[in-house]
Amino acid sequence: DFFHALDDVQAAFGVSEEDLERCVEKGVLNYSKNIGDILTRGRLYVEQVRDSPNTSIVSTLLYGPPGSGKTALAATIALKSEFPLVKLISPRDTVAMNETQKIQYINNMFLDAYKSALNCIVLDEIETLIEWTPIGPRFSNAVAQTIKILLSKAPPPNRRLLIIATTSERSVLNQIGLLSKFTSKIPVPNVTTINELSKSLELVDFLDNESRQSICDKVQAQNGGRVGVGIKHILSHIDTAVKSSTVAGTFAELVNEEISDFSY
Amino acid sequence: DFFHALDDVQAAFGVSEEDLERCVEKGVLNYSKNIGDILTRGRLYVEQVRDSPNTSIVSTLLYGPPGSGKTALAATIALKSEFPLVKLISPRDTVAMNETQKIQYINNMFLDAYKSALNCIVLDEIETLIEWTPIGPRFSNAVAQTIKILLSKAPPPNRRLLIIATTSERSVLNQIGLLSKFTSKIPVPNVTTINELSKSLELVDFLDNESRQSICDKVQAQNGGRVGVGIKHILSHIDTAVKSSTVAGTFAELVNEEISDFSY
Amino acid sequence: DFFHALDDVQAAFGVSEEDLERCVEKGVLNYSKNIGDILTRGRLYVEQVRDSPNTSIVSTLLYGPPGSGKTALAATIALKSEFPLVKLISPRDTVAMNETQKIQYINNMFLDAYKSALNCIVLDEIETLIEWTPIGPRFSNAVAQTIKILLSKAPPPNRRLLIIATTSERSVLNQIGLLSKFTSKIPVPNVTTINELSKSLELVDFLDNESRQSICDKVQAQNGGRVGVGIKHILSHIDTAVKSSTVAGTFAELVNEEISDFSY
Amino acid sequence: DFFHALDDVQAAFGVSEEDLERCVEKGVLNYSKNIGDILTRGRLYVEQVRDSPNTSIVSTLLYGPPGSGKTALAATIALKSEFPLVKLISPRDTVAMNETQKIQYINNMFLDAYKSALNCIVLDEIETLIEWTPIGPRFSNAVAQTIKILLSKAPPPNRRLLIIATTSERSVLNQIGLLSKFTSKIPVPNVTTINELSKSLELVDFLDNESRQSICDKVQAQNGGRVGVGIKHILSHIDTAVKSSTVAGTFAELVNEEISDFSY
Amino acid sequence: DFFHALDDVQAAFGVSEEDLERCVEKGVLNYSKNIGDILTRGRLYVEQVRDSPNTSIVSTLLYGPPGSGKTALAATIALKSEFPLVKLISPRDTVAMNETQKIQYINNMFLDAYKSALNCIVLDEIETLIEWTPIGPRFSNAVAQTIKILLSKAPPPNRRLLIIATTSERSVLNQIGLLSKFTSKIPVPNVTTINELSKSLELVDFLDNESRQSICDKVQAQNGGRVGVGIKHILSHIDTAVKSSTVAGTFAELVNEEISDFSY
Amino acid sequence: DFFHALDDVQAAFGVSEEDLERCVEKGVLNYSKNIGDILTRGRLYVEQVRDSPNTSIVSTLLYGPPGSGKTALAATIALKSEFPLVKLISPRDTVAMNETQKIQYINNMFLDAYKSALNCIVLDEIETLIEWTPIGPRFSNAVAQTIKILLSKAPPPNRRLLIIATTSERSVLNQIGLLSKFTSKIPVPNVTTINELSKSLELVDFLDNESRQSICDKVQAQNGGRVGVGIKHILSHIDTAVKSSTVAGTFAELVNEEISDFSY
Ligand SMILES: Nc1ncnc2c1ncn2[C@@H]1O[C@H](COP(=O)(O)OP(=O)(O)OP(=O)(O)O)[C@@H](O)[C@H]1O
Ligand SMILES: Nc1ncnc2c1ncn2[C@@H]1O[C@H](COP(=O)(O)OP(=O)(O)OP(=O)(O)O)[C@@H](O)[C@H]1O
Ligand SMILES: Nc1ncnc2c1ncn2[C@@H]1O[C@H](COP(=O)(O)OP(=O)(O)OP(=O)(O)O)[C@@H](O)[C@H]1O
Ligand SMILES: Nc1ncnc2c1ncn2[C@@H]1O[C@H](COP(=O)(O)OP(=O)(O)OP(=O)(O)O)[C@@H](O)[C@H]1O
Ligand SMILES: Nc1ncnc2c1ncn2[C@@H]1O[C@H](COP(=O)(O)OP(=O)(O)OP(=O)(O)O)[C@@H](O)[C@H]1O
Ligand SMILES: Nc1ncnc2c1ncn2[C@@H]1O[C@H](COP(=O)(O)OP(=O)(O)OP(=O)(O)O)[C@@H](O)[C@H]1O
Ligand SMILES: [Mg+2]
Ligand SMILES: [Mg+2]
Ligand SMILES: [Mg+2]
Ligand SMILES: [Mg+2]
Ligand SMILES: [Mg+2]
Ligand SMILES: [Mg+2]
Repeated sequence: DFFHALDDVQAAFGVSEEDLERCVEKGVLNYSKNIGDILTRGRLYVEQVRDSPNTSIVSTLLYGPPGSGKTALAATIALKSEFPLVKLISPRDTVAMNETQKIQYINNMFLDAYKSALNCIVLDEIETLIEWTPIGPRFSNAVAQTIKILLSKAPPPNRRLLIIATTSERSVLNQIGLLSKFTSKIPVPNVTTINELSKSLELVDFLDNESRQSICDKVQAQNGGRVGVGIKHILSHIDTAVKSSTVAGTFAELVNEEISDFSY
Repeated sequence: DFFHALDDVQAAFGVSEEDLERCVEKGVLNYSKNIGDILTRGRLYVEQVRDSPNTSIVSTLLYGPPGSGKTALAATIALKSEFPLVKLISPRDTVAMNETQKIQYINNMFLDAYKSALNCIVLDEIETLIEWTPIGPRFSNAVAQTIKILLSKAPPPNRRLLIIATTSERSVLNQIGLLSKFTSKIPVPNVTTINELSKSLELVDFLDNESRQSICDKVQAQNGGRVGVGIKHILSHIDTAVKSSTVAGTFAELVNEEISDFSY
Repeated sequence: DFFHALDDVQAAFGVSEEDLERCVEKGVLNYSKNIGDILTRGRLYVEQVRDSPNTSIVSTLLYGPPGSGKTALAATIALKSEFPLVKLISPRDTVAMNETQKIQYINNMFLDAYKSALNCIVLDEIETLIEWTPIGPRFSNAVAQTIKILLSKAPPPNRRLLIIATTSERSVLNQIGLLSKFTSKIPVPNVTTINELSKSLELVDFLDNESRQSICDKVQAQNGGRVGVGIKHILSHIDTAVKSSTVAGTFAELVNEEISDFSY
Repeated sequence: DFFHALDDVQAAFGVSEEDLERCVEKGVLNYSKNIGDILTRGRLYVEQVRDSPNTSIVSTLLYGPPGSGKTALAATIALKSEFPLVKLISPRDTVAMNETQKIQYINNMFLDAYKSALNCIVLDEIETLIEWTPIGPRFSNAVAQTIKILLSKAPPPNRRLLIIATTSERSVLNQIGLLSKFTSKIPVPNVTTINELSKSLELVDFLDNESRQSICDKVQAQNGGRVGVGIKHILSHIDTAVKSSTVAGTFAELVNEEISDFSY
Repeated sequence: DFFHALDDVQAAFGVSEEDLERCVEKGVLNYSKNIGDILTRGRLYVEQVRDSPNTSIVSTLLYGPPGSGKTALAATIALKSEFPLVKLISPRDTVAMNETQKIQYINNMFLDAYKSALNCIVLDEIETLIEWTPIGPRFSNAVAQTIKILLSKAPPPNRRLLIIATTSERSVLNQIGLLSKFTSKIPVPNVTTINELSKSLELVDFLDNESRQSICDKVQAQNGGRVGVGIKHILSHIDTAVKSSTVAGTFAELVNEEISDFSY
Repeated sequence: DFFHALDDVQAAFGVSEEDLERCVEKGVLNYSKNIGDILTRGRLYVEQVRDSPNTSIVSTLLYGPPGSGKTALAATIALKSEFPLVKLISPRDTVAMNETQKIQYINNMFLDAYKSALNCIVLDEIETLIEWTPIGPRFSNAVAQTIKILLSKAPPPNRRLLIIATTSERSVLNQIGLLSKFTSKIPVPNVTTINELSKSLELVDFLDNESRQSICDKVQAQNGGRVGVGIKHILSHIDTAVKSSTVAGTFAELVNEEISDFSY
């Protein structure tokens, strides 16, 4: 227990760079103009925190459907900032914590950040950090209030902080009063058009031109021009399909299945 | 208490193979094409976790009505994987635990799994693990959130994990936000047609041809072509009926009784 | 407190035969064909648990209106099983326990039962064990879930268990998801017809033929052919009426009063 | 605190006769035939518990509007029983106890009673013991369930128990499922007619004939024949009115005020 | 903490006369016939508790809108009683106490009172003592039940107790079942007419005749004959207005502002 | 932990002047007549608390939309009072405190204030101090009740207290019953007209005349005459825009974006 506890501390206060790198292991594919725009917006806030004489805290929220790439994009912006301290606060590290521990954990991450001159905190999946569930609805108001206060609490003099948060439940954050606390909100859309789908398959060298065309035809046949699948799921379906004898067919099926699953 | 506690630890972290074998003591009858399809799908995910360079975690959910055979099928897939570590997380082992203990228990099972290179966890009856009841409704959100996070938390580098979960409350999992966390969902139907009923009776050598025909006639007379009884209950009714003087008649009665019980 | 605690342990884990005998102190009157049928059904499950090679756990639920004789019938079946271990789990023994203690108590009763080869547990008044009240509604979900799991948790290898439960709130058990966990459900009706009323009075030698006739006439005059009073209350009204100067008249009055109390 | 605690124990387990006597300090006025009937009914249950070979527990509930005299009548029946042990369980003695303490207190009173052969317990103001409030509604389900079980828990062999309970919230007890646990329920009405009012004033020698007539005339003028005031409040208004210069007038006013207070 | 605790005890059990005197620091202005009537009613109950052979406890509730003078009037009646022990139970002394501490505090005040022969307790702002808020609604049922019991719990033999309570939430007390526990209820109205307003200004020598007339004209112009402002607020507005250059105008404005604030 | 605790104490009971100064780091721009009026009203209450013989406590509430400048104005009034003790109670200092700690913290701030003759407390963002969220709704009633009592609890003799509170949830405070406890309420509006917008840009020397005109034209084009943006957000948008190549255009865009965000 003692050694376990020490590990915990390490996990909590050590450098999170490695963790952030794992979030973008599969890279960031440039399958749409959006991707570049989002990264540019991110870079702008990085500059502002680094240079502006009047700004000591900036917070930005990446919101979008499940699997659209929010975490990978947030991690990319944070890693590219080259700030001396970049940290990841993720539900994966608060599993099995009770409410009090979670609040302490989050608060300590911020207290820790206040010690360095230039900081970046990635606050991943806020809706899961507050244990949101639509039944009830239930969530930890105490964790939500902690995040709410930390989002607008200026760091001590001569300290600057950039917060990059993600959520797939924008409307929940709005209802709880968290949304208005962000300096800015950036949408992260799904792979939306057949063209974007085709582009992303090409970028990962999935099959040949013809096969990709046949996939796009099948998806278009079922759904018309609109795709609406997260890049994360597309990459996962590829991994599954390659085990099948009819790779292209299986991939198209899995994508079509997912799209129809969501629409009923 | 001390020795009892040691037993507990054993139960929690030892090899669960024996437990899983008990789940299929009555075998898996091939009474319908579905059975084979489900096992094939299962095998596919086993392969993917074993081989794919990009996949470190796959989760699949077997869902279906009470007694349809979900637990037996999940156990079968897990046992056939021949992964070095297969584990069962079942409400039966968390009885009388409080919320905190349950969360620790589940989390420890996963932490334990992360230590081995290739793992399979059977997560049985999620709706009971979270103490779901429709009155209120009430359930343990803390347990639900723990499962939600663990379903998408990648194991440490060089570790791979297959999660096979079961539930008879798919819509509940959907409402709680657990459903979308699974890589895939596989339906497990009841014994649905008279043919399937007849086939399953034949496969366990229950009575002679004529008696089985008379049973099928009686069930058809009441219900038309649709049966809708779980294989688990069919096997249980056989056990009860053999104690009666009119075995075939009693069996048909018990099956008919159960079908009408469900439909009013 | 120490000695008190020892008594408790005794009460919890000792042989409950005596307790069960007290439940049928006033005997089981054969006032209707139902009574025999219920006992026969009970005997069938006793045989099945004792002999069937495939069955390790059977659970049956006696349900019916207050005072209809559920507890006495459950106790009778249990006592007649002549299983080496018969136990009673009753709200009367869990009075003033908190939720945790109640769960431990119930779980220990089952753990204890798993130690013997052939067991019978009477689980009396489930709705009271879970502290059900329609206002709210409120009940202990933790106790309900414990019972739910124990009802379908197979005992260890070479152990067999028969559970006979009672309730006067069948629909509550259904809503909570407990009902479907029982192997079978047996209704226990009230004394329903004038004939059954007359028969039960005769069986306890209450007054002479003529007086009984006059009683039945009075009850019929108010209620027509339907009676709807529990055998427990009939026996209690007899005890009260014998203290009165007009025994038959008072008894008829008490019965009529009770019937009209229930119908408004 | 130590001495205080000793006092508490004394209060809890000593003889409550003195407490019960204080409940009838102002006597029981025979202002209506009801009074006699209630006491006769009470005596009947006393006899039954003392003599009947089959009865080990009888419970009766006195219910009626606030101030109708329930507590005084329950105390009278208990004191007249001349049982060796008569006890009062009243909210006044559980003030400032928490839920657990209250449950222990009530349960101990019953455990104590089980030690003597012949017992009578007065359970006063059940709705207050369970902390009932219509807002919510809120009440202690744990206390309510404790009382529910104790009402039907037979004492050990060779022990007999009479429980006389009171409430001004019959419908609440019905909703909570307590009402059906009583062997019998006895209504305690208010002073209802002008005649009963007149009779009660006469019985306490309040003023002369003429003044009483003038009072009755004034009450009748406002309310017609129906009065509907508790005997407790009538006696209290007399105490207030005697301090006034116009005794009869003030008394009539106070009674009229109270009646109209209740009817809007 | 130790010394702080001692102070607390002092505050709790010492003589509260000084506290009560602070409640009427600004005196009791005789701006309306009501004031005299209320004090007379109060005096009547004081006499009754002091003299009546049958009365050991009387409770009266002063209710009215915020600032109408309830606390000052209750304190005045208590101080004029010249009872050896007069005590104030006020939310101001229970700030930052938790529920259990609040219950102990209130109960101890009463236990303390029972030690002296003749007592008067002022129970101020019951709605705040029970932490009432209309959202939910929420309140401490445990504190409310404690007060409910203490209001009708007769002190020990040879002890007498007068309770003077105040509230601005009569209907809440009614819903919670507290209202009917009071022996009597006395309304405390606002300054209601222009005449009463004028009288009260005159009684504190605020400005000259002409200025007061101009104020009354302005208030009448906006509101017609009805004022509806508490005497407490009138005195407070005077204090504010005297700092202004246009004293009369500012005062009229503040009063008008408050009246319109309440009516929208 | 020990040293950390000491820091806490320091933070809690030390002089808050520095904290208050940070609240107005960007100054108070005189962009509208309102600003002066608010400061004048504030000064009036400062005088009253300092001089009036009858006043020992005054409380005023600054309410208005997010970012309208409430905290800066409250801090300005407090700092200008030149009272020997000025203190800030802000959610930023209660982050990660539990309910009990928060209550103790707030109460101690007031207890501390009572020790000095002349005090000013700034109570910032009451809705956040009570952890208000519209879902449920949920909030800490215990903290709310503490604030409610402290707002009307007169300090000890010879002590005077001015409370300046802020909120962006006036209607919540009204529902909870806090609003009526304030001596006065002062609205703090947004930058509302194009003129005020233009004035505020000019006062911070943002760009040249022409550019400002072009900004105002763009804002007017989208929104007509009404602006409705907080001064805090205007200053923040300036900081962001200066990093852009098209400063004026970006600024107008950000302002327009925010206005439309709020109106849908
Ligand atoms: N353009 C892209 N943007 C984002 N991620 C990309 C892109 N191209 C490839 N990826 C890969 O896709 C995956 C996106 O997964 P990620 O976890 O970031 O999605 P998410 O929206 O956070 O999902 P969730 O809603 O489950 O939290 C990552 O593995 C990332 O490396
Ligand atoms: N084709 C089959 N599929 C599944 N189980 C089968 C099959 N054939 C026979 N069985 C037997 O039927 C029983 C199925 O019970 P199982 O507990 O798996 O059902 P379940 O759906 O998990 O029930 P529950 O809803 O109660 O959890 C097992 O004993 C299993 O050995
Ligand atoms: N045929 C019968 N069936 C059941 N009980 C009988 C029968 N004949 C006589 N009795 C007696 O009637 C009483 C039935 O009471 P019992 O407590 O079993 O009823 P219950 O339905 O469990 O009541 P409750 O709803 O209050 O739990 C027992 O004393 C039993 O001895
Ligand atoms: N006929 C009577 N019945 C009951 N009480 C009577 C009668 N005549 C006089 N009394 C006196 O009237 C008072 C009745 O008060 P009691 O407390 O019993 O009423 P209650 O119905 O219990 O009131 P509450 O509803 O407040 O509990 C007692 O003081 C009792 O001595
Ligand atoms: N006739 C009067 N009645 C009551 N108070 C008066 C009267 N004349 C002057 N006062 C003064 O007016 C003030 C009344 O304030 P008090 O606190 O008693 O009102 P309240 O109704 O209790 O207010 P709240 O609703 O806030 O509790 C006191 O300072 C009191 O001295
Ligand atoms: N006239 C003004 N009034 C108020 N603040 C001004 C004014 N002019 C400039 N400022 C600056 O604008 C900012 C106002 O921010 P402040 O935190 O006070 O707003 P707020 O209304 O309290 O915001 P929130 O709703 O987020 O609490 C401060 O930095 C302050 O220095
Ligand atoms: Mg993510
Ligand atoms: Mg299963
Ligand atoms: Mg029973
Ligand atoms: Mg009573
Ligand atoms: Mg007051
Ligand atoms: Mg602010």
